[in-house]
Amino acid sequence: MLYLDHAATTMMNPLVLNDLIKSLEIDFANPASTHKLGRDLKVSIDKMREDFVTWLTGKKNGNFYFTSSATESNNTVIFGVELKENDEIIYFESDHKSITLPVEKMALKKIKVISHQLKADGSLNDFCHADPEKIKLVILSLVNNQSGNLYDVNEMAAYYKRHYPKAHIHVDAVQGFAKFQYQFNDDIDSIAITAHKIGGPKGIAGLYLKKGAKVRPLLIGGGQQDDFRASTEAYPLMKAFHLASKLMIENLEENSKHVTYLNTLISDGIKRIIPEAEFPFKNTSPYIICLIVPKISSDILLRHLEVKDVYISSTSACSSKIKGTNPTFKALNIPEKFHKNVLRISLSPSTTDIEALQFIEIFGNVWNEIKYLIK
Amino acid sequence: MLYLDHAATTMMNPLVLNDLIKSLEIDFANPASTHKLGRDLKVSIDKMREDFVTWLTGKKNGNFYFTSSATESNNTVIFGVELKENDEIIYFESDHKSITLPVEKMALKKIKVISHQLKADGSLNDFCHADPEKIKLVILSLVNNQSGNLYDVNEMAAYYKRHYPKAHIHVDAVQGFAKFQYQFNDDIDSIAITAHKIGGPKGIAGLYLKKGAKVRPLLIGGGQQDDFRASTEAYPLMKAFHLASKLMIENLEENSKHVTYLNTLISDGIKRIIPEAEFPFKNTSPYIICLIVPKISSDILLRHLEVKDVYISSTSACSSKIKGTNPTFKALNIPEKFHKNVLRISLSPSTTDIEALQFIEIFGNVWNEIKYLIK
Repeated sequence: MLYLDHAATTMMNPLVLNDLIKSLEIDFANPASTHKLGRDLKVSIDKMREDFVTWLTGKKNGNFYFTSSATESNNTVIFGVELKENDEIIYFESDHKSITLPVEKMALKKIKVISHQLKADGSLNDFCHADPEKIKLVILSLVNNQSGNLYDVNEMAAYYKRHYPKAHIHVDAVQGFAKFQYQFNDDIDSIAITAHKIGGPKGIAGLYLKKGAKVRPLLIGGGQQDDFRASTEAYPLMKAFHLASKLMIENLEENSKHVTYLNTLISDGIKRIIPEAEFPFKNTSPYIICLIVPKISSDILLRHLEVKDVYISSTSACSSKIKGTNPTFKALNIPEKFHKNVLRISLSPSTTDIEALQFIEIFGNVWNEIKYLIK
Repeated sequence: MLYLDHAATTMMNPLVLNDLIKSLEIDFANPASTHKLGRDLKVSIDKMREDFVTWLTGKKNGNFYFTSSATESNNTVIFGVELKENDEIIYFESDHKSITLPVEKMALKKIKVISHQLKADGSLNDFCHADPEKIKLVILSLVNNQSGNLYDVNEMAAYYKRHYPKAHIHVDAVQGFAKFQYQFNDDIDSIAITAHKIGGPKGIAGLYLKKGAKVRPLLIGGGQQDDFRASTEAYPLMKAFHLASKLMIENLEENSKHVTYLNTLISDGIKRIIPEAEFPFKNTSPYIICLIVPKISSDILLRHLEVKDVYISSTSACSSKIKGTNPTFKALNIPEKFHKNVLRISLSPSTTDIEALQFIEIFGNVWNEIKYLIK
């Protein structure tokens, strides 16, 4: 099997899996129990939460809460920041649906929602907004999950904080965290990350909140995690997320270099096979290759690859059910005539050189089989 | 180690753990991916969801959604049922905090909250309510997590449905599901259950909704699980929850008989050691023994047991941080003078006869060491 859909989800890192297996057996107690079995786990959880704050910001100025998914982390912020009628939210229309759907829901409550306006060079267009006091929430992404576009969220946050001082600034860092060097600065109020994109298990994620950031909890009950995220703490999953992050962070530079190399290898390979292929996005994460193969449906390509046990995707898993015009593609300025021609190949540090070469070979074979379909 | 705090959380069933280990390695794909790896997992998830509906109700009349915790399941219903100002909720004050806290929060929004009034025999007192049309939500528990009290929720639901036809009836079945025979009837609109009380992993739980029940989703985004519970599906955890439930259900009668035997063994043993010990609750689940040891602080008893590697609790893990008067104990009519004297011993089908006998022996030794402290 050749799996190059790591932006949808990764396999578990074998080291993390081994550690998780042990933890599932040994660390079974409820961390909220007052007996020693519980207390020891609670101490360990608090330590891990501090590590995440340090990894994200380089300081200890804030809190980290384990959640069950990045969707929960994003939803928690969007539903948890205080918004009154006529307040305003700035967001990317091209962002993950766990952001765009809650934002659209806010629009129904008479919150005004505004798209980020970027110039061609990726810098921000000023909104010339009449009343900067009304903008209460700005949502950014470090890496767009479809295009791979990389945003300098520190710079954007500084810009927004200067113009809209009352705004809470949230960053979805799911596709970037622990994949390349990026330390978040003080203008950022909250950050969502998840385990299953970096070799950790599904079902565990996190939310960083800067000290003083005002967000209401989404789940309430037993008072776990400083009363911010109720639910019995899934200790083994937390530990696995922590280890997966640690291993990625310890190898950041090496991973980044390796994945950049694979990216070039695969992109160049595809260009040789299909000279008409377009790579419309510049300044992208090396982990995501988004391309357009004109005149042939990506569905057909994906099916043929699948028959050969090769897995890539056309759109994000969470948008996979969309029929007709794809709003994410539209927001990314992909012309509508190409909406059925998008491919996304996504990499992991675990992807080997041989896999990349095998992929190009198989992709070339498939292309030779189906290119007669081009009208 | 002698662990008798299974109402807080259980160890993983070794069969479930083995299966989970395999699944974490093999079933890594994102079930929302459109390629075969994703599609196959999606089919399996839908099949498991159907099994849960059948296990709970004996029919196929409804939907089951995987969530991350029973807290999430309970919160989803309480925040998701449509409630307007002056509407009313009936609930148990003695219930888990993932119910009582959201209900109290509703009270701040001018929703009237009313406690269940039970007669001494456990049957319901009529509320003689002026306007039954206003009661929109009734929350029941199958087993109280502290006292072990067992409620015939079918009978209660039928009563409430007759008197308050507009009410959504929710049951927290966390401490009862798959532990003894109980099939939920059609008067019940939703049921919360969780994996980690029956040998499954922490971080996965579920919510059953009867066909036609109107509850808004709590998490929105990628449209997973029929658009009701967004988040990348944690397939391996779901599979483990399903297997843990299946194994418990296949051995319901045997487990129930075994745990009832252990319950009697331990209760009788304690009565022999401490004739003054009181067992204030009747009609309880065999899995929970709640008792009062007058005149000696439960903290002291727990510490002495802990030193001997024996773990029981005084209150539920989720209430463990409460200082002073315990509102759950109060709601359970435990006189305040005994609030520092409550012990909870909770069992699992995996608890052996030998462990029960060892517990009595160690408990007796500890009692002999500390009984001089009684004033």
